[in-house]
Amino acid sequence: MPNEPIDTRAKILEAAVQVFAQKGYHETRMDDIVNESKTSKGSLYFYFPSKQDIFFGLIETFTGLLESRLKEAIAAEQHGSEQVDSALTASLRLFSQYRTLAKIVLVQAVGLGAAFEERRRTINDRFAAIIQARIEKGIQDGSLPKQNADLAARAWVGALNEIVIYWIYTGTPDLETAIPEIKAFLLRSIGVGNK
Amino acid sequence: MPNEPIDTRAKILEAAVQVFAQKGYHETRMDDIVNESKTSKGSLYFYFPSKQDIFFGLIETFTGLLESRLKEAIAAEQHGSEQVDSALTASLRLFSQYRTLAKIVLVQAVGLGAAFEERRRTINDRFAAIIQARIEKGIQDGSLPKQNADLAARAWVGALNEIVIYWIYTGTPDLETAIPEIKAFLLRSIGVGNK
Repeated sequence: MPNEPIDTRAKILEAAVQVFAQKGYHETRMDDIVNESKTSKGSLYFYFPSKQDIFFGLIETFTGLLESRLKEAIAAEQHGSEQVDSALTASLRLFSQYRTLAKIVLVQAVGLGAAFEERRRTINDRFAAIIQARIEKGIQDGSLPKQNADLAARAWVGALNEIVIYWIYTGTPDLETAIPEIKAFLLRSIGVGNK
Repeated sequence: MPNEPIDTRAKILEAAVQVFAQKGYHETRMDDIVNESKTSKGSLYFYFPSKQDIFFGLIETFTGLLESRLKEAIAAEQHGSEQVDSALTASLRLFSQYRTLAKIVLVQAVGLGAAFEERRRTINDRFAAIIQARIEKGIQDGSLPKQNADLAARAWVGALNEIVIYWIYTGTPDLETAIPEIKAFLLRSIGVGNK
């Protein structure tokens, strides 16, 4: 094991974000990441045996961030309807804040083959499950009308994915500015305001 | 040009649906499609110089079908809100009816690289534009409340995509049965019933 500070892994991931963003996944060589991160080849291969491992590391970083933001947002609210509202704000803020990382995870991961696609599906499932549980809580505590929470959660994941990817490609609508509109649309879909 | 009936192209595409569904795109060889379609290698290469061309042919077949169904559904209704309602039913029915073709176009096309991904984005844009125009008509004729039609259309494309892909993978919810629920969810999101 290379004798380096414990944040070497984080440094490599940060460098990889920059290099993938500039050159794209396919064009990036491991050496580019060594140079950008100012670490050694030995360290890089110790933490990440392949370029794909780095990519998966970035996906985990991003989904980890998203999950912890969601957890905080949900813990701060009592009723299911407030929890979904607050979870939506937290996710959209995170995407807006980490546009470069989101671009790599959401856009570059598409078209990279079956292994990536499977990972993407698993992540979608995980976030759909989080949303579903909050909608179900809302139905239970009476803050949301009865509905198919599974279907709604699935639809939200798809809708958010498409909105964020479109924003990454085109820059419109400005995500931070559009948060109230996106929330109004999605909350309407699950019957917030017309129980 | 091979001297064969004019429906050879259609026969090849039908055969390709079967072969891609069974073996997957990557594992399929042009010869498999020649055998399944009972045409000749000459015909196949005349109509489709490469496997990718066959795949694009299938994507066009499916999106062509979807567009003509949408056109009919929309033409049969007067107000914007009825047009989106009817367009939703028509699309979900088509997916339900052509599950195998939908699987190839929506699931197998993912992970096939940049050329396919670009095609997918273009198709999403086209269908988002169709939905957006109907929502805008609804706002104009007073059958829908004022809203960001562009955002709503984009969200619908993402939501429908995710619901259909999940159904293709898992078989749940049964798409035909779930049509009323999916429609209720999406129509609520654009304010149908609470102008």
